[in-house]
Formats: sequence, structure tokens, C-alpha cells
Amino acid sequence: MPGVTVGELGEPGVLARVLAQLSGARGALIGPGDDCAVLRHTGDVVVTTDTMIEGPDFRLPWHDGFELGWKLAATNLSDVAAMGARPTALTVALAVPRETPVMLLERIAEGLDAACRALAPGCGVVGGDLGRAPVVVAAVTALGDLEGRPPVVRSGARAGDVVAYAGDLGLAGLGLSLLFSEAVDAEGNASAHEVPRLRASHPDAIAAQLAPAPPIPLGVEAAEAGATAMMDVSDSLSIDAERLARASGVRVDFSAELLVSGFGRRGSGVRGGGLEPAEPGAQGQPAVEVPIDAMLFGGEDHGLLATFPAGAALPDGFRPIGAVLAGEAASGTGEALVALDGAPLTVRGWDPYTVQVSGAV
Amino acid sequence: MPGVTVGELGEPGVLARVLAQLSGARGALIGPGDDCAVLRHTGDVVVTTDTMIEGPDFRLPWHDGFELGWKLAATNLSDVAAMGARPTALTVALAVPRETPVMLLERIAEGLDAACRALAPGCGVVGGDLGRAPVVVAAVTALGDLEGRPPVVRSGARAGDVVAYAGDLGLAGLGLSLLFSEAVDAEGNASAHEVPRLRASHPDAIAAQLAPAPPIPLGVEAAEAGATAMMDVSDSLSIDAERLARASGVRVDFSAELLVSGFGRRGSGVRGGGLEPAEPGAQGQPAVEVPIDAMLFGGEDHGLLATFPAGAALPDGFRPIGAVLAGEAASGTGEALVALDGAPLTVRGWDPYTVQVSGAV
Repeated sequence: MPGVTVGELGEPGVLARVLAQLSGARGALIGPGDDCAVLRHTGDVVVTTDTMIEGPDFRLPWHDGFELGWKLAATNLSDVAAMGARPTALTVALAVPRETPVMLLERIAEGLDAACRALAPGCGVVGGDLGRAPVVVAAVTALGDLEGRPPVVRSGARAGDVVAYAGDLGLAGLGLSLLFSEAVDAEGNASAHEVPRLRASHPDAIAAQLAPAPPIPLGVEAAEAGATAMMDVSDSLSIDAERLARASGVRVDFSAELLVSGFGRRGSGVRGGGLEPAEPGAQGQPAVEVPIDAMLFGGEDHGLLATFPAGAALPDGFRPIGAVLAGEAASGTGEALVALDGAPLTVRGWDPYTVQVSGAV
Repeated sequence: MPGVTVGELGEPGVLARVLAQLSGARGALIGPGDDCAVLRHTGDVVVTTDTMIEGPDFRLPWHDGFELGWKLAATNLSDVAAMGARPTALTVALAVPRETPVMLLERIAEGLDAACRALAPGCGVVGGDLGRAPVVVAAVTALGDLEGRPPVVRSGARAGDVVAYAGDLGLAGLGLSLLFSEAVDAEGNASAHEVPRLRASHPDAIAAQLAPAPPIPLGVEAAEAGATAMMDVSDSLSIDAERLARASGVRVDFSAELLVSGFGRRGSGVRGGGLEPAEPGAQGQPAVEVPIDAMLFGGEDHGLLATFPAGAALPDGFRPIGAVLAGEAASGTGEALVALDGAPLTVRGWDPYTVQVSGAV
């Protein structure tokens, strides 16, 4: 990436160019530039922090800065949505090496801003911090407003509830699998060389991995529809369902038929509950066939896993995928908390060596 | 530092040991463990993020983990206080190398918690994130509640106002100067070898640098007393006064006599407006003579710089240090915004080669 570096321009200049990418937050009485930003909320405040670090969490040869900023926003916004809250503001702490092109930080800011506008209108970046580090480190904190509603926690699921999901499922794991198998050099290091080809051949899976578009407004809708428990799916559907089951003292039984009928064909413009990112993605491609293993064990979907009372009308975008069963009375015996069609499921997260990439198109 | 490493114990184990150090926040309806924490506020929300990175911002041979956590909390709490808000919660994103002893993270958490309890009772850590990075990176976000008050911004100073300050002034810069000149090895790298001796000979300056104790509750008191503008002093009194003057369209004239009489002798139990950290610091030492250059150009004090209408009763802990003068009508001519006894001051921040360490005791 060409152009002036962070070390050459210095902090005030970098900050000015980053701030120029930000369009503000509707609820912000004061934005960047004072000791703190100030927000007006009407209900309780939800807050979450998530960090992405170059190396373990992302690889610069694969991500455009815009996508990196987009993903940073999306992954934090989905945590806010999963409480049934409306996202109001992000703060961003970025630390980068001195030789980093300023353009990368501008693109990250642009992606953060675009994701807020597309996924959570009214939310925006209200503050942050720039620093120096040996690799790119980005810590985002997201705030949301419960607007008078109680939070939807992960411990509220009850036997008899319907298990439902909204958003992409399995695509992000497929995308990462494709990148790990085809966008690496001979030493196994991430390489930009094959990324354009993969973006063309697998637009939905690559976009779901590099710039996920979770259905953020459905968090509020689920809360209003009476969701009893909710989480965003980050590690994998099976891992996060197990967490929900443990917190609620119940078991979750997924239906393979419901998973396949609801989420087995994805893409072609049905990303993230109908929300489209401003730049990534493509139209007019055939839908992707998603194998059930990718749905259950792929990670980073950031869609919403929720439970609703039997008979509740699910908000548009949610589809039923299973049922909540009573937990065993004398638990702690290693009993499986997650099952597929009644058969105990060994939960696990995304693994590039176990997801079948060949099934992706 | 001995014991098991982060890489050996794994994230769930590390998280459990970190969480065990945290005592919660009074206003938290939900703490760590769900997608978000949930806070109940009575007024507008203030939010700020600040990062400390090993290398540019701190050096592990000098800091005990407890002090590092303490300083992380204190530097963010002072930004909340500077808006006239009461701190309610911190979130913490920590990323460390795999070979980091788990004990370091436990001590950081312990220091974060202790600083909240001592400096901002009711505030605590409500959430966070653990990750892996080549050096220790800690990003803290602090939230505060304005409780129905308007925020005190940096742009509200008016000609005729009194300039006042509360907290340590100049000590933190002296401490850093001592560490840089005496706690380094032959190659100029930070070394733990001389730190115990410096802690014994200069307890106040070393504590002010490694575990500052800003007078957090005075932020609310200043707001209630009618402060027209307020900032925390991070880069230096002169640099931050210039920012306040520019934002307010005024000039600031410091009085050398008021600075020396108010802040020229520090230490011996008068740290940070009477607040004592739980562990650092020492009693029964002679007061430190602080040269006026250290007050004006030393950084990282994190005390509160505020302006009050002439005749306002200053809250206990604030002392007058100057006056607000009218800005020139046709400004932008490079006119000095900060003066000392009427003489234009070239603002600058802490510099280990210009502060006279020999004047410190």
C-alpha cells in the first residue's frame, strides 16, 4: 500500500485524516476532541469490548483496511444486538507500527463508519486513541441503549422454547477455510496473490469472513418479540449453543432438516437479514450450498442465536433451527448439552482442516 | 516473574484467574460473562478510551503489574472526572505474548480493581477481552454518569475566570526523569536493578509516575461548583492549557507565585487530593520540592485543570494557579495562548533531558 506512513505524518496529522472519515453518532452530544465523548441514552447502557490483532485475528494480505474496519464494527455491534440493545457508539483504540501507511488507518476508519451506517444506523465512532505497536492492534468498545427494555441474557432459555437463528451461518468459516487453503504462500503465510480470484469465485463466503454483515436491528426486534435468551455466534453455533444451554440449565437439540432448509443455501443477496454492506459482496452469483458441518462448527458468523417461547411469532429474518429441552436434574455428569436430531454433539469451533471446502460452491 | 504462562494455562484458565481479582461495579446490572455488561445510569453517558503499550508507554522492568493496572485505571478515570462525571465502569482489552506469566495479568487486574476502589468507589471492571500480541497491549475504556449535570467541556473558559488545578503536579515527570536517568542499563534499556533504591529515595515521584492517584471525585465537585471548563493534564500543564485556551478562544496566564505556593512542595501524604493508593507510596518522607519547569512541562500528572468564574468558591483540593485572559480578536497569528506572569510561554511536554532531576529532593 503506497503513500505516507504514520511515523512520517505524526499523530496530529494521522488523527485529522482518520477523523475526516467519521460521520458521527446520532445520540452523541459531544464527539471526538474532548476528554470524553458524551451520549444521551434513554435506557440502561450495554457495553462490550473486542480486540483484533494482526497475526492471531487477521492477516493484512487478505483484508483491505475498509473490510478490517467493517469487521471490527460488525463483531462488536453483534454483541450489543445480542443483548436486545440498539448500538449507539463505538470507541476505537488503534496501535500500529510506525511504517504503517496512513491510508490503512483511513480505510479502517472508513470501514468502521460504513458498517455503522449500514448495519446500525445512528451509531458511529465517538472517540478513540492512536498508539504505536509492533503489529496492528485494534480494540473496539461498543455501547448500546436498552431503551427501557430489560436485557436479553444467555441464561433465560426454558424447556419448550424454540431455538432460532438470524444471519449468515457457516459462510464465514467456509471463507476462512478457502483463504487458509488457497491464499497462502509455500511457507503457509497469508498471501494476497489469490485473494482477487477467491473474491470472484466465492464472493459470499469471502465477504462473510472479511466483512460480515450480521442482522443488528433484529436484536431489538427479538427482544420485543419476547426472546428468552440471545447470544451472537462467534466461536461456532455448537460452542455458543452449549454456553447458552449451560447458562440456562437446559439442553439444545438442533434439527438437521431445519438447519438445511433455513440456512443450507446462502448468498445471492440474502446476506445478513437483508442488509448489504456498502462495498463488499457481489450480486448475481449462484447461491452457496453450506454443509451442515460448516453451520455447526464454523465460527465468526456473528449472527443471532435466540430462544423464543413456543408459539411466539419470530421476527422476519429469524428461522427455527431446534428446540430447548429440559436439562438433566442431576447435572455436571458430562452430559451433552447440545444435540443434533437427538444425538449428542461434540461441540467444536472452526478448524481449517476439518471443514470441507469442496462443498462450498 | 515466576509461574505458569498464559500460553500454558490457556484462555479460560487465565480469564478465571483475572476475573477472581475483580470486585464489580455498583451500577452494573450484569457484569462479565454475557455478550455485554449492562449498566444503570441516571444521566448522560461519558466514554473514553486510552491504550498503554509496552515500549512506547511503559516498561515492564519498572512497573509491577499492580501498578500498571492501577495506572491504566487512573489515567482513564481522570478523563471521566474531567467531564464532571462520576466513573461507573471500565472495560479492559489485554493482549500479551504467550510466554507472559499469568501472574502479571492477575496483578494488572488487581491494580485496576484497587484503583477503582480507592479513586472512584462504585466503579469497577465490568468486561473485557483477552488476546495474544507480541508485546503487552492494554486498552481501557471508561464510562461515567453525568447524573443530570451538563458535561464540563474544554471550550467553556471565559476571560476573567480563575485557572485552578487539583492533584499532583510535576511529580510524575520527575519520576520518569529519575527512571530514565538511573534505572537503565549500559545500552539505555529499562532495568529493574535500581528501581528499589529509587522507590526508597524518591517515593512520591516514583509513585506519581508508576501509580498516579488523581483526585477523581473532585471532577464532580468542580462541576457542581460551576467550573466553566475542565481537562485532565496528560501531556503537560502548558500543552493542555494551550488546548483549553484554543478551544475556548481565550488565553491562560499562569502565576509563578501561585504555582510555587500551591504545588511547589508535594508528597508526604498529600498525594492526589488526599487519596492514597492501597499499596504504592510511603509515609514519613520529607516533602518533595518541585521545580516550576516540572510543573509546566512534566507530563502524566492526570490531575484536573479547571476554570471557575471569578469569586467562585473552589472545591477543597483545587488551588488557583492563574487567570483566563481575553483572546486576541484577530487570532490565528501565532500569538502565544499560554503565558507565565504575562510572558509568553513556549509550551512543551515532558523531556528527560530538560527536567532537572537534581532539584527533586
